[in-house]
Amino acid sequence: MNNRPAFELYLQEITEQITNELKEILPAEWDVPQSLRDAMQYSLMAGGKRLRPLLVVAAAEAFGAERQAALPVACAVEMVHTYSLIHDDLPAMDNDDYRRGKLTNHKVFGEATAILAGDALLTHAFYSIVQAGRKSGVSAESLLSIVEDLSELAGARGMVGGQVADMEGEQGLTNLEQLQYIHLHKTGDLIVFSLIAGARIGGATQGQLEALRVFGRDLGLAFQIQDDILDLTGDEQKMGKKTQSDVNQQKVTYPFFIGLEQSQEQVSVLTQSAKDALGRADLTDSSRLMEIADYLMRRDH
Amino acid sequence: MNNRPAFELYLQEITEQITNELKEILPAEWDVPQSLRDAMQYSLMAGGKRLRPLLVVAAAEAFGAERQAALPVACAVEMVHTYSLIHDDLPAMDNDDYRRGKLTNHKVFGEATAILAGDALLTHAFYSIVQAGRKSGVSAESLLSIVEDLSELAGARGMVGGQVADMEGEQGLTNLEQLQYIHLHKTGDLIVFSLIAGARIGGATQGQLEALRVFGRDLGLAFQIQDDILDLTGDEQKMGKKTQSDVNQQKVTYPFFIGLEQSQEQVSVLTQSAKDALGRADLTDSSRLMEIADYLMRRDH
Repeated sequence: MNNRPAFELYLQEITEQITNELKEILPAEWDVPQSLRDAMQYSLMAGGKRLRPLLVVAAAEAFGAERQAALPVACAVEMVHTYSLIHDDLPAMDNDDYRRGKLTNHKVFGEATAILAGDALLTHAFYSIVQAGRKSGVSAESLLSIVEDLSELAGARGMVGGQVADMEGEQGLTNLEQLQYIHLHKTGDLIVFSLIAGARIGGATQGQLEALRVFGRDLGLAFQIQDDILDLTGDEQKMGKKTQSDVNQQKVTYPFFIGLEQSQEQVSVLTQSAKDALGRADLTDSSRLMEIADYLMRRDH
Repeated sequence: MNNRPAFELYLQEITEQITNELKEILPAEWDVPQSLRDAMQYSLMAGGKRLRPLLVVAAAEAFGAERQAALPVACAVEMVHTYSLIHDDLPAMDNDDYRRGKLTNHKVFGEATAILAGDALLTHAFYSIVQAGRKSGVSAESLLSIVEDLSELAGARGMVGGQVADMEGEQGLTNLEQLQYIHLHKTGDLIVFSLIAGARIGGATQGQLEALRVFGRDLGLAFQIQDDILDLTGDEQKMGKKTQSDVNQQKVTYPFFIGLEQSQEQVSVLTQSAKDALGRADLTDSSRLMEIADYLMRRDH
């Protein structure tokens, strides 16, 4: 039985709903300086994969929650992801002129506005979380836990810490543990957040939250290793960016440390252990999350 | 009767408590990259006036709340204020090498780390708000409203919007309304936040929150006009920075538009209307907030 078309329709539907919800969150009539709104909007609408918001929605639905209740939190995580990309691309960091085939934020709006647009997106993410309660009756206790999770997983001990380690690593990583720290925090923590935020909206127990945390950690690491692999072996057309950039920038990756074949093996092993953790969580319906795990492992861009 | 010594002891005591609480919030054994923690710590401990956290504590106490309950939120607002200074000082923005007589964050830690330290401080502020509930039993509903207020007043419609307008204004402000917009948002909104956050911790009614909002708005504007005046007339020794910097940077200020004397008059008028609003709020004890208003108007640095 092949259910990929149904799954792809599902992805497309959610992506559209998230994009619509993001438009509502920064309405055209918002009373903020025009350049700031434009800069925030530009990067939010620059055509990302919307993986993190998808995970929020899929996790919430796996617990039987209404999709509507999950959308504001899904938008919050996309805003955090987007701010992190804007700041990462800055001249003082990765100094990238293009992302997803479009000029980076600071190339269009200037550095100062790009920094501030990032700051405003991060701040607005927390606003969006509160709106999940105002709009859909998620309890204040759950929302406060989501705020706490985001502030930990996107902060110094999470995503930002991973980015600092990545920057410092450019002077030379010496072992796989350092690389794993970067992957787990820079990419993984926001994926973990997405899953447990969705789970909280769905009323997960502590045990279920822990299972989702393991699922997210293993899935996130598999995702990042797959990224390392695709940078080596991927099709530039499909990727929408130059491949071999890691090699050219002398970035240390999983294939660098353990070779391509073992890296591919790691992706399989981690995906399987992620799915095993999910299987133990006793969800209302885990099928979409399982499909997402397979989809990420299979992807070619 | 002269009660200034008692008031100054009060200021000193609170400032010390806030500094101690801030140290606890970034503990030495925190498992984050060392450079990131150092950079966050450096600017947090660079010796600011602690005005905003003082307002949180004073507002909470004016409603009869325990000081302990207010301290985590007081630290949150100081982290937000500190992040905004770090980002404002960056080469892409004001390009300042010194603040309060010390090297700015990016001069010590480099631009990339400074940007990320700012991001991490902003993120950690939200963590600190949640801790007010974990530590002192402030209700989840109140804390969520504090998160919402901060995300609005520090975000695109608040402080960040004011900063964008300020940057754009450097190309030439043409009227007092534009300058007022900048002052109200860039400085004022975080002062408003501090007061209503304290009030929420103290269990304020909607009417009392509105009164505190007006108090904060007028006090914040008076504070900023006083800053403009001190930059023209202040003593460099007391200020700990060069005066006349606005004139030298061709920054448009209140004295530029309406003259020194009328600006001083405005500070008095706004301070009085702030105090009138406070008088209408029917607080348990408004005396400290009244003293703070007078103190800010009288200050010479």
